[in-house]
Amino acid sequence: MLSAPIESNILKSVCSRSMASKTPVGFIGLGNMGNPMAKNLMKHGYPLIIYDVFPDVVSSPADVAEKADRIITMLPTSINAVEAYSGTNGILKKVKKGSLLIDSSTIDPSVSKELAKEVEKMGAVFMDAPVSGGVGAARSGNLTFMVGGVEEEFAAAQELLGCMGSNVVYCGAVGNGQAAKICNNMLLAISMIGTAEAMNLGIRLGLDPKLLAKILNMSSGRCWSSDTYNPVPGVMDGVPSANNYQGGFGTTLMAKDLGLAQDSATSTKSPILLGSLAHQIYRMMCAKGYSKKDFSSVFQFLREEENF
Amino acid sequence: MLSAPIESNILKSVCSRSMASKTPVGFIGLGNMGNPMAKNLMKHGYPLIIYDVFPDVVSSPADVAEKADRIITMLPTSINAVEAYSGTNGILKKVKKGSLLIDSSTIDPSVSKELAKEVEKMGAVFMDAPVSGGVGAARSGNLTFMVGGVEEEFAAAQELLGCMGSNVVYCGAVGNGQAAKICNNMLLAISMIGTAEAMNLGIRLGLDPKLLAKILNMSSGRCWSSDTYNPVPGVMDGVPSANNYQGGFGTTLMAKDLGLAQDSATSTKSPILLGSLAHQIYRMMCAKGYSKKDFSSVFQFLREEENF
Amino acid sequence: MLSAPIESNILKSVCSRSMASKTPVGFIGLGNMGNPMAKNLMKHGYPLIIYDVFPDVVSSPADVAEKADRIITMLPTSINAVEAYSGTNGILKKVKKGSLLIDSSTIDPSVSKELAKEVEKMGAVFMDAPVSGGVGAARSGNLTFMVGGVEEEFAAAQELLGCMGSNVVYCGAVGNGQAAKICNNMLLAISMIGTAEAMNLGIRLGLDPKLLAKILNMSSGRCWSSDTYNPVPGVMDGVPSANNYQGGFGTTLMAKDLGLAQDSATSTKSPILLGSLAHQIYRMMCAKGYSKKDFSSVFQFLREEENF
Amino acid sequence: MLSAPIESNILKSVCSRSMASKTPVGFIGLGNMGNPMAKNLMKHGYPLIIYDVFPDVVSSPADVAEKADRIITMLPTSINAVEAYSGTNGILKKVKKGSLLIDSSTIDPSVSKELAKEVEKMGAVFMDAPVSGGVGAARSGNLTFMVGGVEEEFAAAQELLGCMGSNVVYCGAVGNGQAAKICNNMLLAISMIGTAEAMNLGIRLGLDPKLLAKILNMSSGRCWSSDTYNPVPGVMDGVPSANNYQGGFGTTLMAKDLGLAQDSATSTKSPILLGSLAHQIYRMMCAKGYSKKDFSSVFQFLREEENF
Repeated sequence: MLSAPIESNILKSVCSRSMASKTPVGFIGLGNMGNPMAKNLMKHGYPLIIYDVFPDVVSSPADVAEKADRIITMLPTSINAVEAYSGTNGILKKVKKGSLLIDSSTIDPSVSKELAKEVEKMGAVFMDAPVSGGVGAARSGNLTFMVGGVEEEFAAAQELLGCMGSNVVYCGAVGNGQAAKICNNMLLAISMIGTAEAMNLGIRLGLDPKLLAKILNMSSGRCWSSDTYNPVPGVMDGVPSANNYQGGFGTTLMAKDLGLAQDSATSTKSPILLGSLAHQIYRMMCAKGYSKKDFSSVFQFLREEENF
Repeated sequence: MLSAPIESNILKSVCSRSMASKTPVGFIGLGNMGNPMAKNLMKHGYPLIIYDVFPDVVSSPADVAEKADRIITMLPTSINAVEAYSGTNGILKKVKKGSLLIDSSTIDPSVSKELAKEVEKMGAVFMDAPVSGGVGAARSGNLTFMVGGVEEEFAAAQELLGCMGSNVVYCGAVGNGQAAKICNNMLLAISMIGTAEAMNLGIRLGLDPKLLAKILNMSSGRCWSSDTYNPVPGVMDGVPSANNYQGGFGTTLMAKDLGLAQDSATSTKSPILLGSLAHQIYRMMCAKGYSKKDFSSVFQFLREEENF
Repeated sequence: MLSAPIESNILKSVCSRSMASKTPVGFIGLGNMGNPMAKNLMKHGYPLIIYDVFPDVVSSPADVAEKADRIITMLPTSINAVEAYSGTNGILKKVKKGSLLIDSSTIDPSVSKELAKEVEKMGAVFMDAPVSGGVGAARSGNLTFMVGGVEEEFAAAQELLGCMGSNVVYCGAVGNGQAAKICNNMLLAISMIGTAEAMNLGIRLGLDPKLLAKILNMSSGRCWSSDTYNPVPGVMDGVPSANNYQGGFGTTLMAKDLGLAQDSATSTKSPILLGSLAHQIYRMMCAKGYSKKDFSSVFQFLREEENF
Repeated sequence: MLSAPIESNILKSVCSRSMASKTPVGFIGLGNMGNPMAKNLMKHGYPLIIYDVFPDVVSSPADVAEKADRIITMLPTSINAVEAYSGTNGILKKVKKGSLLIDSSTIDPSVSKELAKEVEKMGAVFMDAPVSGGVGAARSGNLTFMVGGVEEEFAAAQELLGCMGSNVVYCGAVGNGQAAKICNNMLLAISMIGTAEAMNLGIRLGLDPKLLAKILNMSSGRCWSSDTYNPVPGVMDGVPSANNYQGGFGTTLMAKDLGLAQDSATSTKSPILLGSLAHQIYRMMCAKGYSKKDFSSVFQFLREEENF
């Protein structure tokens, strides 16, 4: 079966792309996550062409695209990503044919698909590759990347992403990286709140928290939130609940991801009863002073005693 | 510090109880669960004095208490349990001093505590020991027992319960067995619905279900419902979702346990936002024809296509 | 059609009861509500035999029952009501045949039915008559009573209740007064939270609160919470939202009534998805310092700004 | 401070617009709602230039804009509205300076604001004017219009909208019409489900539905859904519940409006706990065969008996 002419064009130009060599890689977005990620790429010997809204070396995403044929973007919202790609001085203004553009932002999968279409029109390749793992994993190069895009390009993406993460998972067509991340984080939020509710109820019924966690973890209530990241202070060491919910994955960020899940569910008409409620609970927590605490602080939020 | 006279009385009479020998054991409640449990006790060489509402050998719980000084009760609701203990012909009418009464019914922890008080007044010992594992585990003797009651009696309980289950966990004071079970099953219900929502959303966003399950199970969304009992047909073998949701743990039973969680949460003023909603979802499912299907059929319930 | 012998007995003794005359009326429970209610009865010329846990004139509910053949009870919980009727020194110990016992406490309808059965065994009559309207209405004699019990006795109840309230509604068999109150308050809680959510969303979208309230009130969103008791400060005068949510109907009391709704829904297997969530929201508010504020303070609870 | 020149330009050209005279009015979108609305305009003597995806007279929205300087659009979704305004043959391609463009579609307020900006760039005026009232009100000319846009243009809009509706309410800046409608419909959905839950619970507790409705309507549970559009068959005449939930406002449409409310809440970070759950409930109903029934059929959805 023949591939369509435009696709073979892309693949041909891809072949001329500087894959194996250590030619410059573009990096757009140097925030809490992008900064350590970019440093890990440099450690692996890649020269970087970088851009951020507080610019340093080059003056625009378009300039990055002029100087590098592999670009990674790591931006906070869908709007920032669209601006970086399609804006007045966006990547697409000067992108070279055959370039590989990898977006590691967590954004709406439908926006990823839109961007992919525009990129394809320019003869380049777009992949979505959101991460899980937080700032700590970004620093240590232990992120997980969930990658969506044409399968032929996965190896090229893996070469770069492997410098920054220990897990690079292929999830299928463009947008599927975002979809996988959104689904995982929605389930994470639900099981974290569920763990907090179950632990709190058990404690109020007179159970010892450590014993209850042990029982849950050997039973059908077991989940990552109960056995690896328990939200109750004193049950585990080395987790945010042991450190006043400092560090970890902020409540604001979880609320943002749940907003994306909600949008995707609304547009695909998928019922997410617990997912919606989890979204609203994290929204409430943001309004009650928990925005910068780790998302396992939902235990603390539920725990407060009634004063009567 | 000395233990109170009445307690030492109990302990003394306990010593005269037929613990190690294979003297008769009473068994009250021979339903879907009680029947195979009783058979497993018999396989271990215990003669049984049994009673059920459709009587066989003896005519009342009181008669059982006259003939056996270790009794196991396995009944469907709090009301049945109260009747078996405190009713006109209940166990307490003829219970011998020092008897060991183990209730494996799943009931309200506060009812367990009430029963324990009444039993103690008669100079006997009460322990709550609800099970997890369902009919299959009851048959194969692989139930998990969560046991609440005075610690000195745990070994005596373990001797009998070990004939019917592979896990016998001590949970603390009377009522704590029920509390642990309720908390586990509430978290189970929440993470099962969450898994169903996340899998359904992912599928609608274009992800392959097996791949999505694999990604969740290596990430923070991992839970028993995703990695051991996945609700999506085709993802795993040997689970109810692979068999049209036959067998397993019925939706009605889950709704009942969530009702107990709700009652406990209301009386202890513990917020259970997701737990309450999970309760209502299983309640709705019972009304929509899912009552006899396995509780993982919530995936099917959510999945139905909108017809427009 | 013949009435059963025992009933005609009751009715006969009722006829000998001191209905029209101003003979003493018993009153049990002199809290925030009971106190002004009792005073209103006195204003209408009824001598009172009163009892409270801090006793004044007589030493027990039984003593009240000895001295009065019409008794009103106004107690905070089901447990207090059961104690006052069936306790060691309860009304039933000395109740006279044909007495009329009216319970104005808000309790579980199934407890009302239980009490009614016990009262009937003693040859007396029990009616449940919970109130709506709060302390202000209790003082001004403008309570609404929702009355359940045999219809023949409604006139007798109305004579007394009319001294304390401006609305006395007959709701059918015993327990129906409680049922009506629970259903009303559940719908009230739901529409109050809904009003708060809609007003808050509208304000954040740029609408003027007064204008939005006006539009809702002329449209299908209209409800008592939007047009009579608006939760947004500045929209209406003379409501708790105009007075920093002082006075009115406390969040704790609403949480209690929603707990009763939850119990009734669980035992009748009625799905109450929004009702359950409303219960949990008021439970959360109690834990966050809102317990003594009016229940319309849910607007304030939702409103707090996110600090990021 | 002076108003910007372009605004005064607009106002001047507005003055030259054919306001009072019966010159042609454009109408785009002739579906279930648009059709009777357009007929009402014709009854008032306005010649119409119409366009629909199944075209009749002119071949595109751009053609309508060429021939009319007052245009009403009535389209099913945000995407359709954007296409009609900004598409290849959209209104903006040929809109005359000073034209008045009124969009009666129910869409995302942020999309309305976007369209208004683009329209303003062309020297014309955009107002959002979504309706409430359904097909029946569209036929009888009794719609309610909620209008957002510059106040100076409200009279001109009112002239046309008054031909199709009995209530034309000014809600403030562009987008506020949509915002008001969304808030109203969210509160409507919440109170309708709440009414259905309360009526169902009351009936199961033994209350007569007509009596319960009467009690709610004289108490604090009163709302439009209980006193004007009661969802329980047999309580009121002339409402969808009296006619097997035929006619009225379809469940699909309510689910759509709740999706808009959810989007607005997510983007403004407004917690809508009950609103989110109401959205999910109507989403479930669409999947369970209720999509074409009136939205009050949620009572039927909740009511179905459990079969065990």
